[in-house]
Amino acid sequence: MTSLTSIKNIGFIGLGIMGQSMAGHLLAAGYQVNLYNRTKSKTDSLVAKGAKWFDTPGEVAAHSNMIITMVGFPSDVEEVYFGEKGIIASANNAILVDMTTSSPSLARKIAVQAAKKGLASLDAPVSGGDIGARDAKLTIMVGGDKAVFDHVLPILQKLGTSIILQGDVGMGQHTKMCNQIVIASTIMGVAEGLSYAKKVGLDPAVVLQSIGGGAASGFQLNVLGARMIVGDYAPGFYVEHFIKDLKIAVEEAEQMQLNLPGLLLAKSLFEKMADRGLQRNGTQGIFQIYLD
Amino acid sequence: MTSLTSIKNIGFIGLGIMGQSMAGHLLAAGYQVNLYNRTKSKTDSLVAKGAKWFDTPGEVAAHSNMIITMVGFPSDVEEVYFGEKGIIASANNAILVDMTTSSPSLARKIAVQAAKKGLASLDAPVSGGDIGARDAKLTIMVGGDKAVFDHVLPILQKLGTSIILQGDVGMGQHTKMCNQIVIASTIMGVAEGLSYAKKVGLDPAVVLQSIGGGAASGFQLNVLGARMIVGDYAPGFYVEHFIKDLKIAVEEAEQMQLNLPGLLLAKSLFEKMADRGLQRNGTQGIFQIYLD
Repeated sequence: MTSLTSIKNIGFIGLGIMGQSMAGHLLAAGYQVNLYNRTKSKTDSLVAKGAKWFDTPGEVAAHSNMIITMVGFPSDVEEVYFGEKGIIASANNAILVDMTTSSPSLARKIAVQAAKKGLASLDAPVSGGDIGARDAKLTIMVGGDKAVFDHVLPILQKLGTSIILQGDVGMGQHTKMCNQIVIASTIMGVAEGLSYAKKVGLDPAVVLQSIGGGAASGFQLNVLGARMIVGDYAPGFYVEHFIKDLKIAVEEAEQMQLNLPGLLLAKSLFEKMADRGLQRNGTQGIFQIYLD
Repeated sequence: MTSLTSIKNIGFIGLGIMGQSMAGHLLAAGYQVNLYNRTKSKTDSLVAKGAKWFDTPGEVAAHSNMIITMVGFPSDVEEVYFGEKGIIASANNAILVDMTTSSPSLARKIAVQAAKKGLASLDAPVSGGDIGARDAKLTIMVGGDKAVFDHVLPILQKLGTSIILQGDVGMGQHTKMCNQIVIASTIMGVAEGLSYAKKVGLDPAVVLQSIGGGAASGFQLNVLGARMIVGDYAPGFYVEHFIKDLKIAVEEAEQMQLNLPGLLLAKSLFEKMADRGLQRNGTQGIFQIYLD
């Protein structure tokens, strides 16, 4: 295992909306931040503030004591870690932290390959979205070795407010799956309740006033339900990313022989959205499926 | 229509745990409260505080300006309103308010039969449970005539804090159905997420610390999920009553040709509980279905 040397240089790979905010917090905290992103222009404002651009994930890795990845799909994770110019090939005495929501089995594969080079790794997916990233209030669900977790905790605390070690490698991803499984059926229920309201001739906004404070209340009803009612399907969280997460959850549940019919049903409805070309809507767009 | 005379005598029929609290608030507010309940002993403490017992719903109705019913099933509602010694047969210049969660079509039937005798009626189901009733903080969802609603509002305000007229007769019940439809899939999602946590070897209580503050958060996860984790299936809300509500919701949706697959799935899981003799558990007992 890597020796836990003081972290001064942090690599950050994947500068989407969330990644840009997160890397910005690390820069502001005084770390040297090294960047790589598929689309270089998304790193311009961070480079202007002092971050360093590198041409490959491997070069970022070679110059960093800790490398954070925050990319889109498991295939992207595979590429930045295991590609020819990837992280594993070039990192040296660094801690690898994948904050992408990805599969627990891929987290274990990273850990195994990293260990062969004497590198430590953590899986640390987040929830909280754009706003949580911007306000440094993410929930970070971590899997891996406790000593490694403790070592990087001060850095993760620049990004989030709820940072919990859930178990060994992969358990961060599994915890994120629990989160997504709860959300899948919940947003389906919200869409069903509000579509019933609309169809029967109630004013869904007034219904929300009645039901939004009781046993049905929660983020999905009160925040995303309110967006359904006004037809605002702009993405807080993309349907295509949610489908990716639900596929992972379904595969993992099947491997455990755990039957989750609500998850399967919700996944099929989101896939129906994608079939209609609605995969770049936010998840609240599931309401559209019920309005036919 | 009934003339809206000042209400001094309030009939209360159905003194279960919630009804006892509610009738107690009306007594404390200075109204004369007239009682009938299938099991007489449940009215003893209210009678000791000054409420009057009558031997039939009809006798309660004959002595009251407003009659509140809070019974169990639609069949009970039918009996207390339309039975030989029921409310409709004996009420005289009274406003009838059914606070039972019942079917919208039954609410309309009550309204039609009441109107034939010059009586006004409202459907006013509640949410908030035992605790909401005890603390006079119920959510009350009302259907009916606005003038009648305004007339009884000061009395409903002794029972709840969110009291909204949702539309004409039946729309209170329809609003309650929206609430139950959202809850049905939500609690299914909570049970699925936490059963995944348990099966994969996470500590569900620690998972709840991570996911209970974000996009999955809500009453069902944070309150009922916490009870699932410790195996506390004591009833806050009985499965058998929830099945009754979900049956009404399914029937109404079918009449509108509205397809609600999450509702159908959740209903089938609660019916599976009943098949196993678990219908007197609280709704969080759905967790047991996933633990096989």
